[in-house]
Amino acid sequence: MPSPLQSKTAAGRFFEDFRLGETIRHPTPRTLTSGDASLYSALTGARFAPQSAETFARAIGYPASPIDDLLAFHVVFGKTVADVSLNAVANLGYADGRFLRPVFAGDTLSAVSEVIGLKENSNKQSGVVYVRSRGFNQRGETVVDYVRWVMVRKRDPNAPAPEAYVHKLPEAVGAADLGSACPRIDRAAFDAELSGSPHRFEDYSAGERIDHVDGVTVEEAEHQIATRLYQNNAKVHFNQFSEGEGRFGRRLVYGGHVISLARALSFNGLANAFHIAAINGGRHVAPLFAGDTVFAWSEIVETAALPGRDDVGGLRLRTIAAKNRPCADFPGREGDAYEPHVVLELDYWALAPRRP
Amino acid sequence: MPSPLQSKTAAGRFFEDFRLGETIRHPTPRTLTSGDASLYSALTGARFAPQSAETFARAIGYPASPIDDLLAFHVVFGKTVADVSLNAVANLGYADGRFLRPVFAGDTLSAVSEVIGLKENSNKQSGVVYVRSRGFNQRGETVVDYVRWVMVRKRDPNAPAPEAYVHKLPEAVGAADLGSACPRIDRAAFDAELSGSPHRFEDYSAGERIDHVDGVTVEEAEHQIATRLYQNNAKVHFNQFSEGEGRFGRRLVYGGHVISLARALSFNGLANAFHIAAINGGRHVAPLFAGDTVFAWSEIVETAALPGRDDVGGLRLRTIAAKNRPCADFPGREGDAYEPHVVLELDYWALAPRRP
Amino acid sequence: MPSPLQSKTAAGRFFEDFRLGETIRHPTPRTLTSGDASLYSALTGARFAPQSAETFARAIGYPASPIDDLLAFHVVFGKTVADVSLNAVANLGYADGRFLRPVFAGDTLSAVSEVIGLKENSNKQSGVVYVRSRGFNQRGETVVDYVRWVMVRKRDPNAPAPEAYVHKLPEAVGAADLGSACPRIDRAAFDAELSGSPHRFEDYSAGERIDHVDGVTVEEAEHQIATRLYQNNAKVHFNQFSEGEGRFGRRLVYGGHVISLARALSFNGLANAFHIAAINGGRHVAPLFAGDTVFAWSEIVETAALPGRDDVGGLRLRTIAAKNRPCADFPGREGDAYEPHVVLELDYWALAPRRP
Repeated sequence: MPSPLQSKTAAGRFFEDFRLGETIRHPTPRTLTSGDASLYSALTGARFAPQSAETFARAIGYPASPIDDLLAFHVVFGKTVADVSLNAVANLGYADGRFLRPVFAGDTLSAVSEVIGLKENSNKQSGVVYVRSRGFNQRGETVVDYVRWVMVRKRDPNAPAPEAYVHKLPEAVGAADLGSACPRIDRAAFDAELSGSPHRFEDYSAGERIDHVDGVTVEEAEHQIATRLYQNNAKVHFNQFSEGEGRFGRRLVYGGHVISLARALSFNGLANAFHIAAINGGRHVAPLFAGDTVFAWSEIVETAALPGRDDVGGLRLRTIAAKNRPCADFPGREGDAYEPHVVLELDYWALAPRRP
Repeated sequence: MPSPLQSKTAAGRFFEDFRLGETIRHPTPRTLTSGDASLYSALTGARFAPQSAETFARAIGYPASPIDDLLAFHVVFGKTVADVSLNAVANLGYADGRFLRPVFAGDTLSAVSEVIGLKENSNKQSGVVYVRSRGFNQRGETVVDYVRWVMVRKRDPNAPAPEAYVHKLPEAVGAADLGSACPRIDRAAFDAELSGSPHRFEDYSAGERIDHVDGVTVEEAEHQIATRLYQNNAKVHFNQFSEGEGRFGRRLVYGGHVISLARALSFNGLANAFHIAAINGGRHVAPLFAGDTVFAWSEIVETAALPGRDDVGGLRLRTIAAKNRPCADFPGREGDAYEPHVVLELDYWALAPRRP
Repeated sequence: MPSPLQSKTAAGRFFEDFRLGETIRHPTPRTLTSGDASLYSALTGARFAPQSAETFARAIGYPASPIDDLLAFHVVFGKTVADVSLNAVANLGYADGRFLRPVFAGDTLSAVSEVIGLKENSNKQSGVVYVRSRGFNQRGETVVDYVRWVMVRKRDPNAPAPEAYVHKLPEAVGAADLGSACPRIDRAAFDAELSGSPHRFEDYSAGERIDHVDGVTVEEAEHQIATRLYQNNAKVHFNQFSEGEGRFGRRLVYGGHVISLARALSFNGLANAFHIAAINGGRHVAPLFAGDTVFAWSEIVETAALPGRDDVGGLRLRTIAAKNRPCADFPGREGDAYEPHVVLELDYWALAPRRP
């Protein structure tokens, strides 16, 4: 029982505190600015053309340079941490993530989560919580919507657990659900010299593998600054005093930062895949620590026309990131067993311009 | 005597260079932008709702999201360094600090200091300089006003010293002097779910102690970037070559960064204490170095209604920060002797919304 | 021959891929914002008054605070890396660099390079490539124009090399070519207390040497964040996994970051030399690594009135930066041999206000 003197301090929810169907409005809303975009770019290396240049964005049909999709995602995710995963043992996965509206500098994002699944572990020490989280802009429009599931400790192993209910999740977002965050693009105005690649939607085919070549070493200051930029206050990323005595003896890099680094590296080979339209699934296979160097490669899982749109097409990508291991030979998994050094598998849809 | 070849280089004032009553206009004015706010948040973890979201700020009565009070304070402080404390042995304390106008992105701050006290030390090697520093916006309005005192080396121990004069300083800023930087707040619009806490002014009482729970480890890059953001060029924070041979063998973290980290940690327990209205006193008890983990706790020293205002109330807080030591048992001091690990004691007024 | 599976990945040009006279349009255009200016200042310590404060800039005649000249330069330079120097052995030098238009927050920069010289090395393993690179704003106006030369590896030592042609480069930019990026300045409004120095153009004379006194230690996170801010993706700055096995066993600090640190340090002695008008030449004498502390000093090589302008004058400066060695005794070179610890020699023109 917490001391009354400490009752104003948030201890975070434990597994038995979640109720199926409950809705949680998260603090704190956050206005995204060109300063956030600058910092995001400088921390991750993101440099896709529409996000980098107002002129390029306007030329192809955006009203302004959009905020990087993953920056918006991380900010929404960050808000959910204090309520959902402060007592998490592990962030298990993502699914059914859809980007529904573009986000621009000046927009204010807030977040709401709904508990859509609960399943106690057999050891009664913890359970898996499934939440659908939604990010809204200042007009109340949903900008991002995704499911994640985390293993959360129980406060009291003897506390009764709700009946297990696990929401059925789609294996992937369908092509008809892509593109709503992407305005109609003027294909002819998509300048291949400025964007960094001549390759358009039609140039990619299922099964193709692309090594993104470069590696980037992560520093403690970088991932801490990035994680605070997203107002994600999960303890494991910031507190060497306690993590030094923990499982790994070190601070963990926020998994979302790994996703952003892999995405930025993917510019080399996927420079025109300028917009993330959906996250089908994601798995943090192993932890990343400061001092590690991240490499990545991607496979084109499938390509899909978007119903009613001849301007952009969907590339379903499986991106693998590995640490301290170049990816020229495409390290992955055999069934469920990942090759050593793999840290991330991300299955997502990106949009690329079609041929004019 | 400086070589004529070097005469263009600022060597900073020594103790015997200060004159009681003299006024110093400091370089360099600085326009604060949303980029500065973004970086401040990413470096410190600040996430109070009005500073984080335009929508929240406007809903409660601000014309726009205010710049974090401590960011404005540090920028004003930073300007004073080259003139006041470049040859300082130690930054001894702060008092009578008042925040008088809100600062918004686009405002340009400049700083002026008045020498209000001088006292040579008995060893004649140094003396204590008291300055009242004021920060102004581009309309000439004072935004922050505070006293600090520093121990400054003498260039020449034989130089005559002025007669000692020490300004009498108030023990604390009075409740009537709070609130001028805070517009009238719409209490009903202060959304407790979005702000992160249901606790309002009336929920806090004198003597209450709050452990802020989390710890944050500081990296060299982080405190250097923060200190440069404030254009504070004190040598001890940046130069490992010379500091490696100095007192501590290391670079020191700027004390103001410690204040900002403690304030950001205090969100956990004081999320609605959204505005710093005054700094009654502050003491950097021990140095902080990169690699140290900062924890903090606060005591409610007193609560005060603000004359003529029923929208916000004042919480006088004593915040203690410690390094590499959780604060669940509230480490502090007995008389003048601090418990080991304590690095900061800060006595300040914050405002919180009253019950609707 | 690259595998077809990897054909979408940019491998960068090798020496034999360059053609004399060819023009390369570089990805990715970049809109500079107040966020970039904030980050640049926080990473380098830049604090010249017009770039720091809107009020100061407008008072002297700018329509707004200009983006730091070197930030604009680095962004243009960064764009050229993927096409010009991804396979570079060494960045050999700069010449004939002119700043032709001021850059303001909101401007979008793009870059084009022309190959103006090629010379194979006698060992046939590599060759020197000379490019003239130009940065343009969104109106197509040239903002910066400079020549650099790099040693680039050959893919195949047996590949035939073009006939050697080396462009003749001016030893220095002439005084008549300075000042086009600087609006007419109101000398009387150039407030010496706010700018940080009473010294104007007329106060400097050829042969004068100024030690910039302070030292600044560079962290891995700082130079990586800075280099990504410029969207410079040269591998040597980011990949400890591969650099650990390389020539130095470490990541190299981008030479442009060294230039920016030296320029920021030069505020102490040259606070009123507020605008870089031209870069006559530059040489990275030795590599800088994280953990090193940078010091700098400058010599006034020459002073020059600008034809038709009585508001500002040109100071031709030779700035030397050294690592882990204070510069009070002005370490430099004897003929072509630099003193140990020297990392940079930069010959540039800065403008300073004339006496009212």
